[in-house]
Amino acid sequence: MTSPLTIWTYDWVPQGPRGHVRDIRLRWACEESGLPYTIRSVRFEDRTSPEHLARQPFAQVPALQDGEITLFESGACLLHLAETSEILMPRDPKGRSETLEWVISALNSIEMVSVPWWFIGLSKPPENPLEGWLQSRLARLEAVLSRRQYLAADRFTVADLLMADILRVKTLRAALGDYPALEAYTNRILDRPAFRKAHQDQLDHFAAADAARAK
Amino acid sequence: MTSPLTIWTYDWVPQGPRGHVRDIRLRWACEESGLPYTIRSVRFEDRTSPEHLARQPFAQVPALQDGEITLFESGACLLHLAETSEILMPRDPKGRSETLEWVISALNSIEMVSVPWWFIGLSKPPENPLEGWLQSRLARLEAVLSRRQYLAADRFTVADLLMADILRVKTLRAALGDYPALEAYTNRILDRPAFRKAHQDQLDHFAAADAARAK
Repeated sequence: MTSPLTIWTYDWVPQGPRGHVRDIRLRWACEESGLPYTIRSVRFEDRTSPEHLARQPFAQVPALQDGEITLFESGACLLHLAETSEILMPRDPKGRSETLEWVISALNSIEMVSVPWWFIGLSKPPENPLEGWLQSRLARLEAVLSRRQYLAADRFTVADLLMADILRVKTLRAALGDYPALEAYTNRILDRPAFRKAHQDQLDHFAAADAARAK
Repeated sequence: MTSPLTIWTYDWVPQGPRGHVRDIRLRWACEESGLPYTIRSVRFEDRTSPEHLARQPFAQVPALQDGEITLFESGACLLHLAETSEILMPRDPKGRSETLEWVISALNSIEMVSVPWWFIGLSKPPENPLEGWLQSRLARLEAVLSRRQYLAADRFTVADLLMADILRVKTLRAALGDYPALEAYTNRILDRPAFRKAHQDQLDHFAAADAARAK
């Protein structure tokens, strides 16, 4: 018997991040691949406890438990899950390496700019010092996705799941109007039933915590 | 006969980035593991050519060629090399997953903050909007490295190579004085002969281009 996967998230978060807490990436990957999983929660207020820091040294979520193995960092968890399921990553060397390079691109060429850009934008400065850099990265990605439907291996992979989750951040998605291929790609990937289920499940998870805390 | 690895870099760059162009990560990994490799160059002025964009869609370096496989993104190239050499990553599942999570942490929890922080700092603003975020990440990493010598698997891995390369960026390294464990760790990892050789080789590569261009 295979032990089921455990995805760690918070028990509760404020309204703002709901639907965007990164456990959604792991939920979505498991829904795509049909891997059974259970959700476990650390209390939001206990995220800097020694127990949680042992699981996630930056006091964040998610973490993934797979038998004896515990992993943190959503990107690492996704690559681990991709080793388990061909639905997430092809098995041939070329398909594998394409998936790998686009997973890392999503994390280190797009998200490395888009998340600090978003973070700085929260305080509404007159000019965002990362604006030009973000636009140049999106333009390069637009050129790639104007020629194909998926990032890697001519099929859906975990790289698309990750890239679409990065691009759907509200302020960023609103900026995609200048990039028709990126906008169509993001809409197409987010239209997958596995994303919709993962998204709803996360919203329900935090709503249930509201109800429990209101008692 | 194994075909040798090819690492793609620029033929020339301005003085500023010399010693920091990311081909150094691949050179260093090959030097650690004894994997033979050759260096090939794209003209710096041709980095947005269709030929180079086919190799690296964000118009950057490095790219890695390994037989039929071509990869971009230094993090992806390092994980690919780590599959080839136990010197870079242990073979047991626990050692592998620890290496993987720390490679991704280096890229997405540290560098995602430190590179935008460094970039914004270039224009010398009165306050860097990413300062607090950077310090909180460094403090979390300090807590980890105050309890051990290496990030993963109780031994040197490709995760240390990557993290040390991220931490050695000049303005960041100057800020490590408040983090004695991080400072000692960075010094210890950078003292490895394979780093010193890779660093000197990169400086020599660009110096040779100066000489060729002066002709």
